[in-house]
Amino acid sequence: MKKQQHILVIGAGLCGSLLALRMAQRGYKVTVYEMRPDLRKVAISAGRSINLALSARGFKAMKLAGIEAKVRQLCIPMHGRMLHDIDGNMTMAPYSGRDDEYINSISRGLLNGLLMDEAERYEDVHINFNATCLSVDFETTTALFKDNSTNREFTITPDLIIAADGAGSAMRRSYFLNKKFLFDFSQEWLSHGYKELSFHPTKDGGYKTYKNALHIWARDSFMLIALPNLDGSFTVTLFLSYTEGEYNFGNLTTPEKVTEFFQIYFKDALALMPNLIDDFFTNPTSPLGTIKCAPWYHKGHTLLMGDAAHAVVPFYGQGMNAAFEDVLIFDRVLDGQQHPPATKHDWELVFKTYERSRKKDADAIADLSIDNFDEMKDHVNNVMFRQKRDLEMALEKNFPKAYASKYSLVTFNAEIGYREAMLRGRAQDQAILNLLVNKKIDINDHLKTNLDKVIKATNDILKKDSKGNEF
Amino acid sequence: MKKQQHILVIGAGLCGSLLALRMAQRGYKVTVYEMRPDLRKVAISAGRSINLALSARGFKAMKLAGIEAKVRQLCIPMHGRMLHDIDGNMTMAPYSGRDDEYINSISRGLLNGLLMDEAERYEDVHINFNATCLSVDFETTTALFKDNSTNREFTITPDLIIAADGAGSAMRRSYFLNKKFLFDFSQEWLSHGYKELSFHPTKDGGYKTYKNALHIWARDSFMLIALPNLDGSFTVTLFLSYTEGEYNFGNLTTPEKVTEFFQIYFKDALALMPNLIDDFFTNPTSPLGTIKCAPWYHKGHTLLMGDAAHAVVPFYGQGMNAAFEDVLIFDRVLDGQQHPPATKHDWELVFKTYERSRKKDADAIADLSIDNFDEMKDHVNNVMFRQKRDLEMALEKNFPKAYASKYSLVTFNAEIGYREAMLRGRAQDQAILNLLVNKKIDINDHLKTNLDKVIKATNDILKKDSKGNEF
Repeated sequence: MKKQQHILVIGAGLCGSLLALRMAQRGYKVTVYEMRPDLRKVAISAGRSINLALSARGFKAMKLAGIEAKVRQLCIPMHGRMLHDIDGNMTMAPYSGRDDEYINSISRGLLNGLLMDEAERYEDVHINFNATCLSVDFETTTALFKDNSTNREFTITPDLIIAADGAGSAMRRSYFLNKKFLFDFSQEWLSHGYKELSFHPTKDGGYKTYKNALHIWARDSFMLIALPNLDGSFTVTLFLSYTEGEYNFGNLTTPEKVTEFFQIYFKDALALMPNLIDDFFTNPTSPLGTIKCAPWYHKGHTLLMGDAAHAVVPFYGQGMNAAFEDVLIFDRVLDGQQHPPATKHDWELVFKTYERSRKKDADAIADLSIDNFDEMKDHVNNVMFRQKRDLEMALEKNFPKAYASKYSLVTFNAEIGYREAMLRGRAQDQAILNLLVNKKIDINDHLKTNLDKVIKATNDILKKDSKGNEF
Repeated sequence: MKKQQHILVIGAGLCGSLLALRMAQRGYKVTVYEMRPDLRKVAISAGRSINLALSARGFKAMKLAGIEAKVRQLCIPMHGRMLHDIDGNMTMAPYSGRDDEYINSISRGLLNGLLMDEAERYEDVHINFNATCLSVDFETTTALFKDNSTNREFTITPDLIIAADGAGSAMRRSYFLNKKFLFDFSQEWLSHGYKELSFHPTKDGGYKTYKNALHIWARDSFMLIALPNLDGSFTVTLFLSYTEGEYNFGNLTTPEKVTEFFQIYFKDALALMPNLIDDFFTNPTSPLGTIKCAPWYHKGHTLLMGDAAHAVVPFYGQGMNAAFEDVLIFDRVLDGQQHPPATKHDWELVFKTYERSRKKDADAIADLSIDNFDEMKDHVNNVMFRQKRDLEMALEKNFPKAYASKYSLVTFNAEIGYREAMLRGRAQDQAILNLLVNKKIDINDHLKTNLDKVIKATNDILKKDSKGNEF
């Protein structure tokens, strides 16, 4: 019998916990080290995105790990965007024309706790907390940690290391700083930051506004959103420039100014948050960044996964889903091997195959996420954009198998990768907007006629794009 | 009288030396610290690009500093690309249809030495060698150095620090690692590396091949180039993949294999280099990277310039020219101030204005330089590309004021920025290739007819591009 391979996972966040669970299911010995305390015992710190939107790609990974039903119990369906205009009027804009397609608000803490519980049911999984990874010697497969309670440093040398230690990954920093191989790297920040606020539950534990939607107050150059929690509260997030515009994080320095800002732009939300000032000055303002890098692995020793490999801005609600899908794709690559990887050489082939399959999709969701910021804060209010969305909803409802919007392709269609969803979705968007702008389509025309026009115009764009530069 | 401002320049390379000279001319006190020994006293190390191509933008900066005539004396004009095919046939492809437009081979060491000599003629300039910058505290305008002979560390706290310390800039690393502000950063590597080789002079000190050209052996996936030196030698550079293809840097490990490779692909060059094996196994193989970042400055304290702010791959021959142009643009910003900057606040405005004016052009030359790799190693052999170049040469010759190719716009037209050159140049390339592919232009037609067609098609593309996405 072959020696059991030992995998060290750095980070017990959403990605690391699912990875540990799935690798244990595949028969590996898994040791996890997490920088923070055990969030099942200590309250999660305020100001880090408290809830998230789980959708098809995430669920597919939950299903792979056999925990889909348990995860569903933590979910609050959000069927569409509830748009709040400046006068306080609300309009529901569904995410899809198909009734079974919606996204789900879920608590980061509860989901992460569940994943850790499930992983720890396997005796070959050991999760250790309060140990910060300082660096990784990727030539010798050795990770250096510091025990946060004793400040003692120690090393672990497993068969392989997978770093799922998030956007600030220590292993990625080692790749960057050690200069032992050519490492492509980019970090890019938005001029906007974010701050978490909240709607508390009503006195009887109910919801202060409509529960089953992602609420958006889109104000062109900034926006507020709110997602429901199981306890009746909403987590509210303000996205605002650090320095530009009349109101920005740089000049919202007094309770009066903050109240004035909300009074003008988010009057109906302000009415739901007597706790605004407290939240605003207690919670941190955090930056929004995109991180890309390559390669994601070094030899057969170490691999980056999840945010450590590809951090995205939150505007497509796909950061967590993408990290979960990483585990799914990695699992599929392991399925595709002729024999279970046993040597460094075998693992290098696995890592290489995984990156080749996955990198293009990780790049695509990063770009899509930035695009969607404009869509959310600005375009949702635009007349032409609304016409486009109305047409798409009608097409999805009446031709559920023939049409899927870009949003649906990205969010609900886990059978295709992000890149394919991006290419097709962008071409569709362009096609519909061109048809509308050039008055080549009549929104009141026969729907099948319009479907055919959209499909033809989309395919023309895709054909032209794929031809590219003749030279 | 106002206190004389003291500028610390990190790096006495091409950019740092010119900057020191120009700032002294403007009346500043300038201290320069350079990591390496004084290259006027110690031979430059082999394997670092020994000669470079100086063109219009670089000359414009030399003129500003009053040293154009002295620099011209170091130059060897290269009027075009001398293309060597695999059978050893040579074809001269001029860089421009205008006779006064050519690029110049110049020795890095001689030019750098001249710039340092000129700077040191000012008593307010002090250049110190063998002192490596370890980090910069950009909040206190303090640079930490190590004296390389004594290993003693020391600090300098001037009024402002300008880091011209190249692609591996220590100050940029401080920006990156200290995380005191949001710093966009990217480094991207080509899959090809490079190695410097040489043609020695003939016995009587003459040139072994045609002197006044940049020689190219383009072989689709790799290439060899050669630039003349004043002493009759040529510096030869091999650009080759690290790992891909039948021959690559990874498998050229024996004299036999290297000779075999040159015998097959560069037979005529091999005949000129009995020293090939010696050069090949003595000189390092170096990577080719692009670095972009933003912001280039922090408050009114520190500024990145030249390769430290924007490193490019060498295929447009513009790295040095762009660095010199930085000094020119910076000087122009100083000219535009209502009064000479005296406070941190004044300097911050200067840095901000400079970056706003310069960043788009630095990004453009980075992208153009990558494009040009394909053009050099591959397209120069392509029939359609040659037709396009022939047409462009005829247009430039006959309509010198009405037409300039992308290459001319970038290389010879210092009156417009790189970005404008890129946009117009790319549109022209696309226009001509479309006309040729679609047989909408007859190369033997009346030249004025073809000029009009090219200009019209170019403007159509530019108009379409500037319209962009309607939405």
